[in-house]
Amino acid sequence: MMTINEKNLAKLTRKDFPLFSSEDLKNNPLVYLDHAATSQKPKKVIEAISHYYKYENANVHRGAHQLSAKATEAFEKARTITSKFINASSEREIVFTRNATEAINLVAHSWGDSELKEGDEILISLMEHHSNIVPWQLLAERKKCNLRYIGITSSGQLDLEDAYSKLNEKTRILSLQHISNTLGCCNPIAEITQKAHSADALILVDACQSLAHQPIDVKKLNIDFLAGSSHKLCGPTGCGFLWAKENLLEKMPPFLGGGEMIQEVSLNKSSWADLPHKFEAGTPAIGEAIGMGAALTYLESIGLNNIHAYEKKLTKYLFQQLETIEGINIIGPNPKIQSNRAPLATFTINKLHSNDIASLLDTSNICIRSGHHCCQPLHKHYGISSSARASLSFTSTIDEIDTFVSQLISSINFLQENS
Amino acid sequence: MMTINEKNLAKLTRKDFPLFSSEDLKNNPLVYLDHAATSQKPKKVIEAISHYYKYENANVHRGAHQLSAKATEAFEKARTITSKFINASSEREIVFTRNATEAINLVAHSWGDSELKEGDEILISLMEHHSNIVPWQLLAERKKCNLRYIGITSSGQLDLEDAYSKLNEKTRILSLQHISNTLGCCNPIAEITQKAHSADALILVDACQSLAHQPIDVKKLNIDFLAGSSHKLCGPTGCGFLWAKENLLEKMPPFLGGGEMIQEVSLNKSSWADLPHKFEAGTPAIGEAIGMGAALTYLESIGLNNIHAYEKKLTKYLFQQLETIEGINIIGPNPKIQSNRAPLATFTINKLHSNDIASLLDTSNICIRSGHHCCQPLHKHYGISSSARASLSFTSTIDEIDTFVSQLISSINFLQENS
Repeated sequence: MMTINEKNLAKLTRKDFPLFSSEDLKNNPLVYLDHAATSQKPKKVIEAISHYYKYENANVHRGAHQLSAKATEAFEKARTITSKFINASSEREIVFTRNATEAINLVAHSWGDSELKEGDEILISLMEHHSNIVPWQLLAERKKCNLRYIGITSSGQLDLEDAYSKLNEKTRILSLQHISNTLGCCNPIAEITQKAHSADALILVDACQSLAHQPIDVKKLNIDFLAGSSHKLCGPTGCGFLWAKENLLEKMPPFLGGGEMIQEVSLNKSSWADLPHKFEAGTPAIGEAIGMGAALTYLESIGLNNIHAYEKKLTKYLFQQLETIEGINIIGPNPKIQSNRAPLATFTINKLHSNDIASLLDTSNICIRSGHHCCQPLHKHYGISSSARASLSFTSTIDEIDTFVSQLISSINFLQENS
Repeated sequence: MMTINEKNLAKLTRKDFPLFSSEDLKNNPLVYLDHAATSQKPKKVIEAISHYYKYENANVHRGAHQLSAKATEAFEKARTITSKFINASSEREIVFTRNATEAINLVAHSWGDSELKEGDEILISLMEHHSNIVPWQLLAERKKCNLRYIGITSSGQLDLEDAYSKLNEKTRILSLQHISNTLGCCNPIAEITQKAHSADALILVDACQSLAHQPIDVKKLNIDFLAGSSHKLCGPTGCGFLWAKENLLEKMPPFLGGGEMIQEVSLNKSSWADLPHKFEAGTPAIGEAIGMGAALTYLESIGLNNIHAYEKKLTKYLFQQLETIEGINIIGPNPKIQSNRAPLATFTINKLHSNDIASLLDTSNICIRSGHHCCQPLHKHYGISSSARASLSFTSTIDEIDTFVSQLISSINFLQENS
């Protein structure tokens, strides 16, 4: 058993989360190790959403009345918060979407349909989440382009040599996870971006697994597009965002049509609203954007650097404990090899099905995930159909890891004895 | 002054809404007459959302743990509630979207791109909301189709003669508001549907302005597609839905790609999940769908027939009072001509700008809307650039109408004296 003597973020923050401080769970605590699938929500976020619906609810950008002005102010403030969270140049670069998936689809449709031509290449990797594969497959089919995949090294990281060998004059965009939701590896985006730009290709970063875990600065990374998801950032579902460089968004045609995104509608032709509204058709997810704003403010109050440092220690400990288990195969880089990897561990156990393990752990109130984690090509690469994944956050504790590992060992023993 | 002696829904329901029972507003009550832009939210809806985020939050359809099972159950229950609310044949026919706008765009992209060919005709009307114009303009441009418009009668209703004269063998879809958000007229959808089907055209109904005001039965109407919006139904923003006949959805290709909507992903090809998930890429708006489910349950507990009957009386009274005002021009049918019209009145005042009227009313805490209400073609038809709109709900009262009308008269006098 180990203790973290430095600033214990979990002790400071767990009281903020109703799920972790519920009276019902006092005698039977829930060990939630599925933060990579979705984060839990602090009181401040839930209260921001409730407050909006109770006292400030109105449609935005449209009314001549006080309630609409309040709602518009709160909604646009959330955009400013989001913009600052990633150090964007302006709010005009933040497009609110339903989720990160929609953000990627928006780029594939708007930028892809207008810019790509037959024979162009789109470069992604074998580790991508389906959200960063399927939109490109559909685009490649529409525009007769080629979708190419970067391989994985033996230590479970992006094969950079393979990446750079596949980058050529036909490559129009490189679309990559910042951090893999399965391998947990952190891809060297700044370096890859330099190479992509040298080849005149754009780069989109799916930052769903990094934004809640380390500071992200789009200017420093010098990327072109970034997709983020509220519900993975302590915010509500129903909201995500696309960030893109303003000059790209200016050139891109609208994706969805409707109210809010127009300047003028005539019978056969319309003109478009200024950025970012050109890409936000219909009544936006007002309450949810406000909730996401509250979540980002909450994360900043803790400090992304603090979160990153704390989670690094937890991850090291998680791996140390898991490695003692006989028959375990962990995929993705060990924190000894890559210290800034994600706070999660994905594994299989010889001869056992990960669903059986997860189900058995669930009977002890331990929530981990089992399946393909929306990464079927990656699982096929490893010759497996499913894996188990335990994922942490700044609210996670050494005690939770100990409980998880000891119950995992019991579960393995039980399943092996009863198979 | 008139009193409604029958069941007074406002008295019964206003206490359910924090905005109408806020202590802050006791001495200075807000007269919210912008229900057509967005509905206010009852406590039960706000509590359902909070409860989900506090105690049942997890990603759906994916986990092997109890929290995910709870979240999935709550989310899919919301789909069942939605399905029953409009008497759909099955939950498989309900696709959750961000808003009604996205639902219409989904049909325009998925059905439109795969089914339409050059020269085909799309028939909409001059009264449509931009959400039911722009997606079809963009589709018509992509597929070289013709977008045609049905005119408006002198009484501010859909010109059925014009509609049927424009319906021909080239018409592939008719897409119409059930109730106009500006004129307030209720279009005879069942009759129009018969004619559309006789011409082998499909029909999409934008039901944003009708779903909260009268019972809707998609089987009785026999339509093909229906778009609905949570935030206009006492539910949260960030959620809407597309209903479509199952056989249509089965044939339609996916729109957005990503997780949740796939069956299997291979490197160059994917197969799709069963309905309705094929159309729901990425983590859905879980909390918001649950909130919409609570809202529909709340509306049903009041009874859509009761709401319709109560609002009819209010509307009649609103028109009676407005008609006494000198220089007012109301657009849309008088309730004497069309008794099932929407509980709203859109008007201009001779020589005054509607923005000035709305702003002045706002200083007396009266919230109405001013502008083009996302209906520029309709406003151009009437030769105006903007209008004022007061819209009611079952929480509205005769007192509110009296306050509004008397302050409207004062505002007009003030503006005329000071112009």
